[in-house]
Amino acid sequence: MVNRQVLLRERPVGVPRADQFEVVERPVPDPGAGEVLIRNHWLSVEPAMRGWVNDAPNYLPPVPVGAVMRSYAVGRVERSNHAMWRAGDVVTGMFGWQEWAAVPGSVIDRKVDDDLPPSTALGVLGLNGITAYFGLLEVGEPRPGDTVVVSTAAGSVGSAVGQIARIAGCRTVGIAGGPAKVALCREAFGFDAAVDYRSPDFEAQLAAACPDGVDVYFDNTAGAVSDAVYRLLASRARVVVCGTASVQDWSPAPLGPRVERVVLVKRARIQAVLAFDWKARYPEALGRLGAWVRDGLIAYREDVLEGIGEAPGAIAGLYKGENMGKRLIRVGS
Amino acid sequence: MVNRQVLLRERPVGVPRADQFEVVERPVPDPGAGEVLIRNHWLSVEPAMRGWVNDAPNYLPPVPVGAVMRSYAVGRVERSNHAMWRAGDVVTGMFGWQEWAAVPGSVIDRKVDDDLPPSTALGVLGLNGITAYFGLLEVGEPRPGDTVVVSTAAGSVGSAVGQIARIAGCRTVGIAGGPAKVALCREAFGFDAAVDYRSPDFEAQLAAACPDGVDVYFDNTAGAVSDAVYRLLASRARVVVCGTASVQDWSPAPLGPRVERVVLVKRARIQAVLAFDWKARYPEALGRLGAWVRDGLIAYREDVLEGIGEAPGAIAGLYKGENMGKRLIRVGS
Repeated sequence: MVNRQVLLRERPVGVPRADQFEVVERPVPDPGAGEVLIRNHWLSVEPAMRGWVNDAPNYLPPVPVGAVMRSYAVGRVERSNHAMWRAGDVVTGMFGWQEWAAVPGSVIDRKVDDDLPPSTALGVLGLNGITAYFGLLEVGEPRPGDTVVVSTAAGSVGSAVGQIARIAGCRTVGIAGGPAKVALCREAFGFDAAVDYRSPDFEAQLAAACPDGVDVYFDNTAGAVSDAVYRLLASRARVVVCGTASVQDWSPAPLGPRVERVVLVKRARIQAVLAFDWKARYPEALGRLGAWVRDGLIAYREDVLEGIGEAPGAIAGLYKGENMGKRLIRVGS
Repeated sequence: MVNRQVLLRERPVGVPRADQFEVVERPVPDPGAGEVLIRNHWLSVEPAMRGWVNDAPNYLPPVPVGAVMRSYAVGRVERSNHAMWRAGDVVTGMFGWQEWAAVPGSVIDRKVDDDLPPSTALGVLGLNGITAYFGLLEVGEPRPGDTVVVSTAAGSVGSAVGQIARIAGCRTVGIAGGPAKVALCREAFGFDAAVDYRSPDFEAQLAAACPDGVDVYFDNTAGAVSDAVYRLLASRARVVVCGTASVQDWSPAPLGPRVERVVLVKRARIQAVLAFDWKARYPEALGRLGAWVRDGLIAYREDVLEGIGEAPGAIAGLYKGENMGKRLIRVGS
């Protein structure tokens, strides 16, 4: 049997292009001592992957050229040489963009819940939902009645942020690109207001949606969208920096309006969220997110690409905004 | 007798010029019911005064055109119609740029300490020292062994920040303009290293002074100096935004390198300090700062202008960096 893998072919600057990956065929590996052999069913596509392949300082070293692309995945244990896992377990972890993975048992993060679709382990019950949970609640510190603004609000992280903020008693305002995503924000994800950043009167619409200013801004984009939100920050606002989807290239950093004055005058705080920092509390987040999904308090959308051949162009497409919901690749089913 | 006052004559954009104030002569006022009559001895000059006179959103409404310039001062109570204060008390509060002030007793912040020079109530034992104390300890959260970088390190706030950081067990690096201020940082204020931002190899010097990166950046300048420090931020760095002395005008905000990426990659935090937010804890700060000054652990420098006629040009001079230490105006002595 063949294991198709997606390798990083050259080092991208900025958003990786399809031609900077290649799909190769290798034999299905044998798991070594302490390893498990996993047949992947779902691969994840994340905006964060740009940072994982660029040659710039980051929280993880860049994926080496020639290596399998780093990715979360969901798959089924086919063979196990590790005491904690057995054949038939459906599990999630950093298994990479490949159809089969032989990895140490410790690379498995967890078994996925039986009563929810396994693909949710890559979105609302994976890195995206966990990032939303800790970013909003621990970094954003929302209080009931706060106005919470979210950029890329129709995306996997943004939609979860908006819905958790609503559960926390906040007024929620989503920013998204295009009428379809704006409608999704209002209808599927329950934002109190949603604004299209491509609209010519975006700034006026945003101001109208935030009559008392912005208490929490969950920033997935940076760029001009963020500049508009910063102009509306309320006193003691908290900005959660989660992603920079609107910026194509950070070498060098593009110019924008300096933020020191608004930080000072509004006594604001700008702080990053990185889900990995909260690893010890993942069970708490997954428990609550799972309950909210089961209770219908959190909805999610998925954007499914069929087959590993779609992987090379999948990140660039994400940065073009072509997905509606969490982008996934279905493989080997 | 005559009361010379400095009035704001027109609304400045950016740093106020001398010709935007005027010195007028008025009769010494009579204190009304609940008021005290204070003869001022020392007037303060602060970088924050730019923000107090500009027509832009701020934490206080702007000083009205035609009004006495807002200022902290130290003076002696000459007559009192308020039960808490009596003639002869030496006190500090927002008495304005004038030789005499008739103010409600509640405008007095406190009696100044008998055993220290009264002028310290405007610097190291006033707004500047209090800002340094809470900004560094509560917003910067320094830990022993941290590298703490301070801009305008020879100034009243900066020199206090560096010395409090040293007391807290940190390695301290000062940034100042010109060899005299750099020497002052090293010799009078005990910085472990001090760097001249006007030096052609400033960035290389700063990097050499911070071999383990910057854990806390106490930012009094914004601008290019800050851009250089941001490039050296360590993981989980805290940036304390206190002032923007290097930026002449914020309408509109000047452009600089966007910060979202460094915030994300370094998991950094950017947060404002405003001393007024800590009013309930001023006694704690003043008690400790006073003890450190008495014990010789905190040194300070003063830059004294003689007579209220010097006031109109004093703020512009501050932004040119012509002062060495806390700028004060001695009046009516």
